[in-house]
Amino acid sequence: MDRWEPLLRGDIGKMAMMVTLLSDGREEKELVQAVRRRGYLIVTGKVGSMDPQKVVGSIESSVKRQALIDSDLYREEHALYHAMMEALLGISRGQISFGSVLRTVGLRYTVLRGLKSPNAKEEKDWIAVAMYGTIGAPAKGAEHEVMGLGINHI
Amino acid sequence: MDRWEPLLRGDIGKMAMMVTLLSDGREEKELVQAVRRRGYLIVTGKVGSMDPQKVVGSIESSVKRQALIDSDLYREEHALYHAMMEALLGISRGQISFGSVLRTVGLRYTVLRGLKSPNAKEEKDWIAVAMYGTIGAPAKGAEHEVMGLGINHI
Amino acid sequence: MDRWEPLLRGDIGKMAMMVTLLSDGREEKELVQAVRRRGYLIVTGKVGSMDPQKVVGSIESSVKRQALIDSDLYREEHALYHAMMEALLGISRGQISFGSVLRTVGLRYTVLRGLKSPNAKEEKDWIAVAMYGTIGAPAKGAEHEVMGLGINHI
Amino acid sequence: MDRWEPLLRGDIGKMAMMVTLLSDGREEKELVQAVRRRGYLIVTGKVGSMDPQKVVGSIESSVKRQALIDSDLYREEHALYHAMMEALLGISRGQISFGSVLRTVGLRYTVLRGLKSPNAKEEKDWIAVAMYGTIGAPAKGAEHEVMGLGINHI
Amino acid sequence: MDRWEPLLRGDIGKMAMMVTLLSDGREEKELVQAVRRRGYLIVTGKVGSMDPQKVVGSIESSVKRQALIDSDLYREEHALYHAMMEALLGISRGQISFGSVLRTVGLRYTVLRGLKSPNAKEEKDWIAVAMYGTIGAPAKGAEHEVMGLGINHI
Amino acid sequence: MDRWEPLLRGDIGKMAMMVTLLSDGREEKELVQAVRRRGYLIVTGKVGSMDPQKVVGSIESSVKRQALIDSDLYREEHALYHAMMEALLGISRGQISFGSVLRTVGLRYTVLRGLKSPNAKEEKDWIAVAMYGTIGAPAKGAEHEVMGLGINHI
Repeated sequence: MDRWEPLLRGDIGKMAMMVTLLSDGREEKELVQAVRRRGYLIVTGKVGSMDPQKVVGSIESSVKRQALIDSDLYREEHALYHAMMEALLGISRGQISFGSVLRTVGLRYTVLRGLKSPNAKEEKDWIAVAMYGTIGAPAKGAEHEVMGLGINHI
Repeated sequence: MDRWEPLLRGDIGKMAMMVTLLSDGREEKELVQAVRRRGYLIVTGKVGSMDPQKVVGSIESSVKRQALIDSDLYREEHALYHAMMEALLGISRGQISFGSVLRTVGLRYTVLRGLKSPNAKEEKDWIAVAMYGTIGAPAKGAEHEVMGLGINHI
Repeated sequence: MDRWEPLLRGDIGKMAMMVTLLSDGREEKELVQAVRRRGYLIVTGKVGSMDPQKVVGSIESSVKRQALIDSDLYREEHALYHAMMEALLGISRGQISFGSVLRTVGLRYTVLRGLKSPNAKEEKDWIAVAMYGTIGAPAKGAEHEVMGLGINHI
Repeated sequence: MDRWEPLLRGDIGKMAMMVTLLSDGREEKELVQAVRRRGYLIVTGKVGSMDPQKVVGSIESSVKRQALIDSDLYREEHALYHAMMEALLGISRGQISFGSVLRTVGLRYTVLRGLKSPNAKEEKDWIAVAMYGTIGAPAKGAEHEVMGLGINHI
Repeated sequence: MDRWEPLLRGDIGKMAMMVTLLSDGREEKELVQAVRRRGYLIVTGKVGSMDPQKVVGSIESSVKRQALIDSDLYREEHALYHAMMEALLGISRGQISFGSVLRTVGLRYTVLRGLKSPNAKEEKDWIAVAMYGTIGAPAKGAEHEVMGLGINHI
Repeated sequence: MDRWEPLLRGDIGKMAMMVTLLSDGREEKELVQAVRRRGYLIVTGKVGSMDPQKVVGSIESSVKRQALIDSDLYREEHALYHAMMEALLGISRGQISFGSVLRTVGLRYTVLRGLKSPNAKEEKDWIAVAMYGTIGAPAKGAEHEVMGLGINHI
């Protein structure tokens, strides 16, 4: 147990969101380490674009580069892809399209791989994709917050 | 400033999500107080159902009872309603329907009213609705986490 | 030509909407007659419900009762059905569900059958379904206007 | 009261649609003037494109240029944006995409700002976006009418 | 190899559809046996309803009863559930709702579990859900065919 | 009657899917001939793209070139278009977008025109569009099967 315990107590999705929400501060590295000590693989990053394709491509690349999924197994890529799509539905609230309706997103994301719940060992690995940031017109201040969470078995 | 500062630093949506994610612990009351000290109206609650109508009705009731919106003004109800719909799109990831496809949700929610960002006084009041919990078959353990966030001007 | 000419000049969808928008006044009968003189079959009515099924059933019934479509031909029912669905997507703006998210609609509707455009005789009959009214909470005043238009070949 | 009374009697959405439906005739200017005399801000225009982004951008530009909304307030832009999105859902009937499925739209639009209903002064300003025109293949005659209406508090 | 070879040559989804399309004839049992000889678990059935919940419940029940998935593992139920949802999106073409818009479905279905492609052993088990039947008004003849296919890793 | 009878027994949609599923083998020509002997117009083809617009354009072109529809009648193009859209909703399972979320499709398709059911002569011509193939990342093996079926009166 550590000082992050009150924040990280819970399931895979909550942990992914907590890291995403807090990952702009000084303590990001500590938080990522605390998640790793709990047995999870974790990848964090940032992406900004008017194009959902860029968001998807950017997350896929960093997840593969850091070996959170096995790039040779399509089933792992498939699990990641659908988790990303579900998170993007939360970001776009129903229609996955940003630039085509003249909006832009700026997002931080966290991808976690590990147990769905601390005690659900028989359920093996799951994947959680959390995204948090802003959506708005491509102009400073003309934006508000958005968050999305996708979870899948892997 | 207080000890909650690192968690509550940021905009209205982040605060709403942070309270929702942490509101099952001992420190929920303290956290709600810390949000109030920052000048926000706040309502928290729980609802479980196979019926989106119950979720909508339950949140509307507690928000009106605690006077977070003015019940006599339709424009305030309209703002709340669309913020709830956007949060539900994140929960259901594209199709607002639970029981009709044999799923049930168990959610904690937080509704905040106040400045969109600490410094955006000219933008007046906004409303944020955060929901966090589980969706799944109506059987213990057969479920995973979901989160939704909706934000609107009011 | 008649005094309604400036209002009814144009295609089948415009006529259907014009009748729907103006059909709460004294001149509704005159307007319906003017549409008939232009060679169109026309059915008008009202329906209020929290249930899309009621809206669909009510329009189908009055359209068949007044023989705007041939009840023995599924292809005509199929054309009507998809035109209604498209109008309902305009009413509900993306998700065909009212009561399940605790809203109710009160609608006037007009169904027209005839030429798509005054000069497009080779295109044979088309069908237009226009709906106009309000959507909102089941409480007086807590509502705003909605409109939907669906057009199909028949 | 004036000769337009029978056409403009009613709420903000009906007025916006009536102007849009009738705005290709000689009497457009008179109609716009009659709306202004009732205390509404009004902007009308035309836009044709295979790209929803162009439709959104064109309306945003003319609305800001004519000061129907305060360009410095994001909350007003946010209200306009969601009203446009709702109108576009009526135009596209469920999926906001034209060119990506090889269709093009030609639209007239009207944006109104003022009271939701003539007597609802306590409800302050609302915004209505009406669009009317055609959708179809990029070839003369291969098209039919579409209409969309979006309404929001501002 | 057997006489079904030309029909069953290919991947898991094609096999599931082929069985569903042909399963009303005398040779259904033979076809099911031929699929089993290729190493797949297979469940077939029929369901008719105005209620998506009934379709989902009926398939879940027979799949669990016949042990195509391990009822004690939520991850397997989760895989089945999303494959069913994807098949239902094909059946309903965008909005998972039948009775709420006054339509009824009559479906045959096939669920297969095994290799995605004959040679993709490293990809382990996948699940395919194929549905084929009719959608229409609750009246004889007033209906047309629909098909849906959902595929997921398990 | 011929040796294809067991495969082609049934309605227009089943025939379209059967041809699509089997059309990569040696017997494709025979199968197409058997469909023609039953009185149907038939067009088959292949298309691969990250862009729904390419899929739509490719099918429209070959259908017109082979005179399955009358290019001078918009009502026939309209019928084809909506049948294609419904098939694409099955392919994309809810959101018609491939490349914009970094996926590519490789599809075979069959378009049939003729009686909805062998005995439904009074219902005149219907059109069925079947698509079958794969969707996935633009990399060999990283894909799974998809199928879509759209049916419309013409």
